[in-house]
Amino acid sequence: MVGGGQLSRMTHQAAIALGVDFGVLAAGPADSAALVCGNVTLGDDRGLQDVLAFAKANDVVTFDHEHVPEPVLRAVEEAGGLLRPGRDPLRFAQDKLRMRTRLTELGAPAPRWRAVASPEHVTAFAAGTGWPVVLKAARGGYDGKGVWVVDDADAAAAVVARAAAEDVPLLVEEKVAFERELAVQVARSPHGQVAVYPVVETVQRDGICHEVIAPAPGLSEDKATRAQQLAIEIAHALGVTGMLAVELFETADGVLVNELAMRPHNSGHWTIEGARTSQFEQHLRAVLDLPLGSPRTDAPFTVMANLLGGEDPEVYRRYLHVMAVDPEVKIHFYGKDVRPGRKIGHVTVTGDDHRDLLERARAAADYLRGDDQ
Amino acid sequence: MVGGGQLSRMTHQAAIALGVDFGVLAAGPADSAALVCGNVTLGDDRGLQDVLAFAKANDVVTFDHEHVPEPVLRAVEEAGGLLRPGRDPLRFAQDKLRMRTRLTELGAPAPRWRAVASPEHVTAFAAGTGWPVVLKAARGGYDGKGVWVVDDADAAAAVVARAAAEDVPLLVEEKVAFERELAVQVARSPHGQVAVYPVVETVQRDGICHEVIAPAPGLSEDKATRAQQLAIEIAHALGVTGMLAVELFETADGVLVNELAMRPHNSGHWTIEGARTSQFEQHLRAVLDLPLGSPRTDAPFTVMANLLGGEDPEVYRRYLHVMAVDPEVKIHFYGKDVRPGRKIGHVTVTGDDHRDLLERARAAADYLRGDDQ
Repeated sequence: MVGGGQLSRMTHQAAIALGVDFGVLAAGPADSAALVCGNVTLGDDRGLQDVLAFAKANDVVTFDHEHVPEPVLRAVEEAGGLLRPGRDPLRFAQDKLRMRTRLTELGAPAPRWRAVASPEHVTAFAAGTGWPVVLKAARGGYDGKGVWVVDDADAAAAVVARAAAEDVPLLVEEKVAFERELAVQVARSPHGQVAVYPVVETVQRDGICHEVIAPAPGLSEDKATRAQQLAIEIAHALGVTGMLAVELFETADGVLVNELAMRPHNSGHWTIEGARTSQFEQHLRAVLDLPLGSPRTDAPFTVMANLLGGEDPEVYRRYLHVMAVDPEVKIHFYGKDVRPGRKIGHVTVTGDDHRDLLERARAAADYLRGDDQ
Repeated sequence: MVGGGQLSRMTHQAAIALGVDFGVLAAGPADSAALVCGNVTLGDDRGLQDVLAFAKANDVVTFDHEHVPEPVLRAVEEAGGLLRPGRDPLRFAQDKLRMRTRLTELGAPAPRWRAVASPEHVTAFAAGTGWPVVLKAARGGYDGKGVWVVDDADAAAAVVARAAAEDVPLLVEEKVAFERELAVQVARSPHGQVAVYPVVETVQRDGICHEVIAPAPGLSEDKATRAQQLAIEIAHALGVTGMLAVELFETADGVLVNELAMRPHNSGHWTIEGARTSQFEQHLRAVLDLPLGSPRTDAPFTVMANLLGGEDPEVYRRYLHVMAVDPEVKIHFYGKDVRPGRKIGHVTVTGDDHRDLLERARAAADYLRGDDQ
């Protein structure tokens, strides 16, 4: 797996049970996965030489991020490296303009959008949708970076000018009056086998996925089925191998596709405890073309909350407190130094009452961050 | 953790989520845990120098086997090393004569027994219990090794002579007419906090734990409570820290203590999927004096079956088949070369009907071994 972050760390855990030889290409020895994995290659996890060498040393290469540049992916495939997902589907995850264009061709429901080359493109677009609108960098954004909600033509012009100066292609999307945000994950293997997980509710804060409730409480069966079908259709149409996460807006009428990610995803961390097959195991099964595992859930609800760093870098005492207060909370630490706002782990709780679970997951996350003190 | 076997490998998985710095002292780089862990010390996992150096390099030392000789344990403690469990409780796990003596003092129900220094001791004992009787090496036995069921005085004399030649102390136990074998696990922390798991049924074959059904179907609440209380009492009385497994015989009247193990145990592998807190996570929490996790179960039943090697060392094709036939079977491979009869992994299935689960777990294990072909 290229990249040594927490997704790679948790994939390593799954690889142990499967008995799969798992290696990581990590930028440094203190990377989340590099701290725990027995087979670590240190190198530039976006650079041509290092990714190429890593691909030569491994039968299959997959990714814990989408930041390996297209020319690098191309060179690896041309040298005979087996990328899963491959360069072709990854282009859609790396470039929102390509993604939007392809989804429009497929007839997938989505926010209205257009490519932006000038401030006038934005004002013309907003004349149809109304202000505010959402400007997005087509490439390089994640976790809320590269997304700007603009209220008027002046604000839009400022973003467009800055993007032009940095040579970043832009698109504009309508700001959807959604009821809530949802996500659905599907695994697809090279054989074409798919396994789809229940649709979950995601609670975003500052552009970062904060909490996940699985399955999304009160979601109509129509919308749930539609969302799952959409994920399967997109996975097939784009030729995805491995996990695909489809982030969605729920509106009164249905669901709209917001973003795609072709890797294990924060919205699927709940599957470690909540589903028979975790997204990490499923990703491995899919990219290795093994038969997929069951995505079935046991408990009625599973709630996940991200652990973000607070002001105090010392979390040990608070960690003990959280464990003692609620022995059913499952804690996942990523081995990262604590910095304010940094994702340092997550907690998961399973049970019957999603309100109770959310309260408990939040209490653990808030306490660990130091908010209650 | 001293020892690089599968118990260490699965403890490593649990350490990743807890964010605990976990290192292994393994005899070789191909040891089950050494293959996957990022922090491996190669050395003699029973030898004075290497265990001493390992203890100096780590805050807390625990074990995946009971074979570190007592003088080594003593030297480590005298040098200030923190062993959990400590030398004191470990003596009872290492020496069945000590264990039987202590359990008798505690009034724990157990098979009748006595120390054996001559063939006459056995015949005198059998005069009270009837033949056959069970001779056991007091030290060094595991997985059925060091246990002999003898039918008469001649057979007993042969075992006694061989043991005397090898300087192995012996004891004799009555052969209990048990209804089935049970096991119960308890975690105890240095604080004295305990967490006890449901009593399970274990199915032994050739002295090796083959299958585990959790909880033991149809076990009366009286017996279940008695078994759990026994485990807690023994853990406290012996000063155990970490996981304690108590293997039991169920008889018409109650339960009898058969064996003790002070580490994660084969009878607890089901907890990875079947309980909120796996025995591996619980062992780490206990030996690190962290608050213990909930041993609660979600599914009504969990069944575990060991995967033993068959004649054919190539299991890949059969592995695919097992995954494809039953996508709900959870496979755990230990990274070991396949040899006939060797434990190479285990499978776990959770659900409502323990008969169905046992059938499915057996089918997977049998197919993987090559029995169906």
